[in-house]
Amino acid sequence: MKTIPVVENVLKLNDEVALLNRRQFTQAGVFVVDLIGAPGSGKTALLEATLKALAGRCRTGVIVGDPATSRDGERLGRYCEQVVQVNTGHGCHLDANQVRQAMGRLNVTDLDLLFIENVGNLICPVGFDLGQNAKVGLFSVSEGDDKAAKHPHLVLTADVLLLNKIDLLAYVSFSRDRFMEDIRHLRADAEVIELAASKGLIKAWIDWLLPRCRTR
Amino acid sequence: MKTIPVVENVLKLNDEVALLNRRQFTQAGVFVVDLIGAPGSGKTALLEATLKALAGRCRTGVIVGDPATSRDGERLGRYCEQVVQVNTGHGCHLDANQVRQAMGRLNVTDLDLLFIENVGNLICPVGFDLGQNAKVGLFSVSEGDDKAAKHPHLVLTADVLLLNKIDLLAYVSFSRDRFMEDIRHLRADAEVIELAASKGLIKAWIDWLLPRCRTR
Repeated sequence: MKTIPVVENVLKLNDEVALLNRRQFTQAGVFVVDLIGAPGSGKTALLEATLKALAGRCRTGVIVGDPATSRDGERLGRYCEQVVQVNTGHGCHLDANQVRQAMGRLNVTDLDLLFIENVGNLICPVGFDLGQNAKVGLFSVSEGDDKAAKHPHLVLTADVLLLNKIDLLAYVSFSRDRFMEDIRHLRADAEVIELAASKGLIKAWIDWLLPRCRTR
Repeated sequence: MKTIPVVENVLKLNDEVALLNRRQFTQAGVFVVDLIGAPGSGKTALLEATLKALAGRCRTGVIVGDPATSRDGERLGRYCEQVVQVNTGHGCHLDANQVRQAMGRLNVTDLDLLFIENVGNLICPVGFDLGQNAKVGLFSVSEGDDKAAKHPHLVLTADVLLLNKIDLLAYVSFSRDRFMEDIRHLRADAEVIELAASKGLIKAWIDWLLPRCRTR
């Protein structure tokens, strides 16, 4: 009887392409950040502030994923020469192949730092390796203090966790203690940085980023 | 040569189970709402306020989906006898089969109104019929005014759209005009209801809900 090939693991195929991406990024000497957060957590606002802060210090590029529109790409294009927008349609995350296609539109050898703004979603993007050097998980206080506990896979696999919109703490119900307790319960060593990206309060994040970028 | 059966369309299988769910809901005379929104858009807060407002007027139940924890189920269990929590793990949406399993833990014949709080995600839940009567899309002002444009499939298929957290309008950058313009561009007849669920400001939503529930 003829053996029928079965694709058992779509993630395995993804991982093979991610490995190619990672090799190319390493050869180019670019540090790559996969930024994962819910819709409206402030990923684009964080990247706007970050690109502004890094201007003249670091050559930056962005691959930005969204189900529809090129708005984020347009917002980020003001602060950075190399931006590619990927529209995923019904797709709820970026995969390594989409990143590879986007890389074909960039000159990665001219970059020190490449941000991949993933599709707004706290679940599926976590499972797909893109070839990044660092996975960054972004939460925001307006989402409520239970989001780390509800998304353990992101907490367990992120290189750093960011808590955005701390300027809204006075206006929403959010317990920092409870949020941090949930994170520590999952992972005692997790690094958490507080931000207010839309107010430009991102110094600790830039301090985290710059040495990683410069050691490439 | 042996013919190998191929599952061509996982959505087709889902739709068959959704049809069974819908038949059972109809027979039970229960009106079923599939509530879709981003993580932190206020789905659980809205249901808390809704269950409180409907107490004594309508027999309510909830199926609540989350990647992890039973926190939402516990919150809602205070206001409603029949609550089932579904933990989806790596799954980013509920499917008809999960709802069917949850229905086995409920007495649907004793309900007038069943809410299905979907997993926090604006993309995948939209594509999966659960057997509901109404699909409700929830946005919130703290997410930014671009979320309708970025999630056209939800806007195009929802029976009603809700805009939550209008109490935060003074503290965040959100243009109502831009949000509404994007919605009207996709769909001129879309119905949009503004809310502040955590402040109990949900009257227009209750007014939308009650006649639908009572005509069953």
